Amino acid sequence: MFTDVSVDKYKVLPAGEVQLGGEGAADKAIFDGGKKAGLAEMGVLLEEIKELQKVLYAEHKQRILVVVQAMDTGGKDGCVKDVFASCDPQGIHIEPFKSPTTLELAHDFLWRVHAKVPKNGHIVVFNRSHYEDIIAVRVKKLMEDAVWQRRYQHVIDFEKMLAEEGTTIIKIFLNISKDEQKERLQARLDNPAKHWKFNPDDLADRARWGDFMHAYEDLIEKTSTELAPWYVVPADRKWYRNIVVARIVIERLKQLNMQYPRIDWKVEDVTID
Amino acid sequence: MFTDVSVDKYKVLPAGEVQLGGEGAADKAIFDGGKKAGLAEMGVLLEEIKELQKVLYAEHKQRILVVVQAMDTGGKDGCVKDVFASCDPQGIHIEPFKSPTTLELAHDFLWRVHAKVPKNGHIVVFNRSHYEDIIAVRVKKLMEDAVWQRRYQHVIDFEKMLAEEGTTIIKIFLNISKDEQKERLQARLDNPAKHWKFNPDDLADRARWGDFMHAYEDLIEKTSTELAPWYVVPADRKWYRNIVVARIVIERLKQLNMQYPRIDWKVEDVTID
Repeated sequence: MFTDVSVDKYKVLPAGEVQLGGEGAADKAIFDGGKKAGLAEMGVLLEEIKELQKVLYAEHKQRILVVVQAMDTGGKDGCVKDVFASCDPQGIHIEPFKSPTTLELAHDFLWRVHAKVPKNGHIVVFNRSHYEDIIAVRVKKLMEDAVWQRRYQHVIDFEKMLAEEGTTIIKIFLNISKDEQKERLQARLDNPAKHWKFNPDDLADRARWGDFMHAYEDLIEKTSTELAPWYVVPADRKWYRNIVVARIVIERLKQLNMQYPRIDWKVEDVTID
Repeated sequence: MFTDVSVDKYKVLPAGEVQLGGEGAADKAIFDGGKKAGLAEMGVLLEEIKELQKVLYAEHKQRILVVVQAMDTGGKDGCVKDVFASCDPQGIHIEPFKSPTTLELAHDFLWRVHAKVPKNGHIVVFNRSHYEDIIAVRVKKLMEDAVWQRRYQHVIDFEKMLAEEGTTIIKIFLNISKDEQKERLQARLDNPAKHWKFNPDDLADRARWGDFMHAYEDLIEKTSTELAPWYVVPADRKWYRNIVVARIVIERLKQLNMQYPRIDWKVEDVTID
């Protein structure tokens, strides 16, 4: 069962300090119980999300943008699949962002993501996002430093505009430890059905683990805002990661006080022959 | 011939003061001569624009965004057609923005315009723009005041991001007088071939001329920035308006120091059998 620790424990306050990896990745402060109890609880949360999404869709006034970032094997695909499993697919869109194409690189870095933001009544989940254009560019030294340094302010301004125009923004960093990544990469190597998910280049990123952690800490500290906060979610345990993200989504959706649209006719006036 | 007054006379400095209509609409300080001489000069300017666009396209590094705003009959269509007449159509796109569709209104106001910004090597001209989402919304009271008030900062931030990512932004307001508008509207009424351009609703806007001027003055003062300045162009004389806008475009393009791409082979090594 849930403890009385709020899921806001994982929310990064503006100008808050962030430390990734290590102990945080295995934290389980909001839930008092093991995997089995956690999976059972997840069933309840999925029902809640389902109901909330129904109102969101019917009301057609709010937009929800969920941004998911993590290191390789961090669990982005699994988390997105599990947390939104009960949603009506008509109202939810998963948008994976890969390495930018030539056409995308011929535009500003927000061009391709802005095209995919949610419209009224919809949830859009970014599986990777505009944050790669800071993180990957910085760690892999793809452009000169001034470019990614300027982009902190660009994303803050962009998300502020989205939020003030009516989009709720939930930014999730799935925090796994370096040891957990090793196990997950090994599992991919050991299972031929998972070979397609293994990319030898991932090892190059793993070799720069420290650089990535430092860049992510910097990024999350600089771009967690009142209107678009980051949540650093312990992700070494997949079941725990899922209930945390589900709880975050539920709490943010509840704050919107969504309503089914009012009808402008009286039920008692309608007769069905 | 051109006087020694710079076309920067019409550029609005950040925090500069703007007064529209009246005398400014008939100014002709940068050109010493009449319509005939102006039209001849325009031929020379069109050649310059043609050459500059060739390099822009070949270099494939810079992007040019021209925003054109004006009152009805202000000359947006004609100006765009005349000033970019010599450009290779492959590298220039005119994007007219009409009243937003239902789909567009279900997104933030910058969604539809961001989708149309130029890519490397290209010029995009916005015929109307995101500025309508401030001006029309304000004067016609389409949304509550807080919405358009917040949008000043949204457009400043948006254009800053575009500029820092490599887009040159040129914002043109075609300044006509209320008397000139009357003549142009009357001309549309008098000529059956122009009836399609006349919309009785335009008269409702004309009745709010003062409100529009006030809203535009406010808008231009608040959103003219170092990176994305407004130019208030005298537009009562069409030929003069054209040479001013052409000169602005030419000067901004020249500042980019564009170069044809360097070849990585030697001309003398190539023999064509």
